Amino acid sequence: MPLDEFAIIDRFFRRPSRRDDVRVGIGDDAAVLQVPAAAELVVALDTLVEGVHFPEQTDPFAIGWKALAVNLSDLAAMGAEPAWFTLALTLPEADAAWLAEFSRGLFTLAEEWNLALVGGDTTRGPLTLSIQVAGHVPPGEALLRRGARTGDGLYVTGTLGDAAAALRDWQAGRAEDPALRGRLDRPAPRLRTGMGLRGLARCAIDISDGLLADLARLLAASPGNGARLEREALPVSAALRRRLAAEPALWAGVLDGGDDYELLFCAPPEREADLSALAARTGETITRIGTITAEPGIVLEDADGRRQTVTPHGYAHFAPPQEERP
Amino acid sequence: MPLDEFAIIDRFFRRPSRRDDVRVGIGDDAAVLQVPAAAELVVALDTLVEGVHFPEQTDPFAIGWKALAVNLSDLAAMGAEPAWFTLALTLPEADAAWLAEFSRGLFTLAEEWNLALVGGDTTRGPLTLSIQVAGHVPPGEALLRRGARTGDGLYVTGTLGDAAAALRDWQAGRAEDPALRGRLDRPAPRLRTGMGLRGLARCAIDISDGLLADLARLLAASPGNGARLEREALPVSAALRRRLAAEPALWAGVLDGGDDYELLFCAPPEREADLSALAARTGETITRIGTITAEPGIVLEDADGRRQTVTPHGYAHFAPPQEERP
Repeated sequence: MPLDEFAIIDRFFRRPSRRDDVRVGIGDDAAVLQVPAAAELVVALDTLVEGVHFPEQTDPFAIGWKALAVNLSDLAAMGAEPAWFTLALTLPEADAAWLAEFSRGLFTLAEEWNLALVGGDTTRGPLTLSIQVAGHVPPGEALLRRGARTGDGLYVTGTLGDAAAALRDWQAGRAEDPALRGRLDRPAPRLRTGMGLRGLARCAIDISDGLLADLARLLAASPGNGARLEREALPVSAALRRRLAAEPALWAGVLDGGDDYELLFCAPPEREADLSALAARTGETITRIGTITAEPGIVLEDADGRRQTVTPHGYAHFAPPQEERP
Repeated sequence: MPLDEFAIIDRFFRRPSRRDDVRVGIGDDAAVLQVPAAAELVVALDTLVEGVHFPEQTDPFAIGWKALAVNLSDLAAMGAEPAWFTLALTLPEADAAWLAEFSRGLFTLAEEWNLALVGGDTTRGPLTLSIQVAGHVPPGEALLRRGARTGDGLYVTGTLGDAAAALRDWQAGRAEDPALRGRLDRPAPRLRTGMGLRGLARCAIDISDGLLADLARLLAASPGNGARLEREALPVSAALRRRLAAEPALWAGVLDGGDDYELLFCAPPEREADLSALAARTGETITRIGTITAEPGIVLEDADGRRQTVTPHGYAHFAPPQEERP
């Protein structure tokens, strides 16, 4: 018997929720949700299209996990606590095996953060998914992109370039390093750090399109500032470091690779000890990678003190590749 | 110069908002919104796929209008007041003329209801759009599908079958009746009636898949009940009535056609006068079309008192057409 959209929802997406703030979930015209008193609502949305954001034949578990993770990463960058999400799923066919793995990936991450799926729409068409995550922050405490000041330290969570290296290996048909591939398929949203940065960071963004591209956005939100990055300070995983000596081209992925889903933020220098304490509490590393400067632009400084101005080469939809990556 | 996703957002989708409850709108990692104190959040999501929900070559103004309208209709069915929306737009190419008309349709309706577009994602791929609308209701006052009781009157807003007749004409290449076509392309969400039904209706749903299909959902939410519909009472527009005498097949569209985006609701019989007053206040008609009965199933009664049991033939994704419309 073929699965219709309601059977798909019942079988794969209707899960009991442990949340008591969902008055009405899946199954009515809309969801009804209780936002904590005085909190502000925070809403992020991301779409993944097969062949654009992930190659055909991607493991459906990874698609489900990642579609939610990229949205949670946006909430982390706001310092928000996630609560609920909705799913718009467009599928070429109702493939039960695919749906089982996709929903397993989705709910493995959702349950880790006690998120409830409260609504959605399942339609037929080319494989596309949009997830919207909603959460909340205490009033006025959301971390914004704007707010950088000259002299602030510039920090990132985790390590950079792993996902880009994994994608490069995959596209070249090379043997995979599971440590790198896991970072491409199952990014960990830095929600603990994000919530811990409330009142501590002055600005924040998540790195989805590459360190330089997202740093440029952070700087654009605080005109009159630039940044100096210390190349030696950029955090690189042990797995990637093993590769860099033989393949220096992988450095490009550290700066421009995208898909890192780490947080990039600035904080006044006197908060250094608070940041160390936060990292110790969450188990998520925080590394100082540079400084906000008064000169516009991004300067990369190497171990010998040589400086060069760099420009981002992040991914852009609709722009021809030759213009984007000259 | 080609439009990249940020240029598309700036040129077509970043509009000044008159709302003072948008703390952070488009341009950060997520939106930050202020839900009124003590209100409950109401969230609806609908996806439209080209070739599935609308034919190729559909007027982009109509696509923009309708994508928002179908979501507002869901909020109307909950009795909610809409406030904000997000847009996930997947486009095969960045066509400025298409985007201009699409965004004009979208914002014509958005401005009518003072809605702010607070976030979105623009990606490349087959034409697909998901809109999510969020609004609010006073605590506990959302209209749900469940709640029908034997003896309740069954009501609809507006008229039924117009959009189905227009779609039929279009698919057959027949001359269009602008009155019918307007109902297909620019459905009017019944938000005034929906908000007015708080505390008055006992259950509500919006008619997206056809009167019978959505009535069956309403009944499924209140097990142990059925409905008797009076065929002569079903509200039909003047434009459609002119056609029905010569083409009785169009009756199928009144019962099963879908795309009506009217509200279907039940209310205790003693609220009849309140409903009349509401219709007078909003200018949106309300018609009693039947009664909630103790016998499960849907019975259609004609002018001579003859009764037949009917079953819905609404649209279902992923089910083969021959099974859906035997």
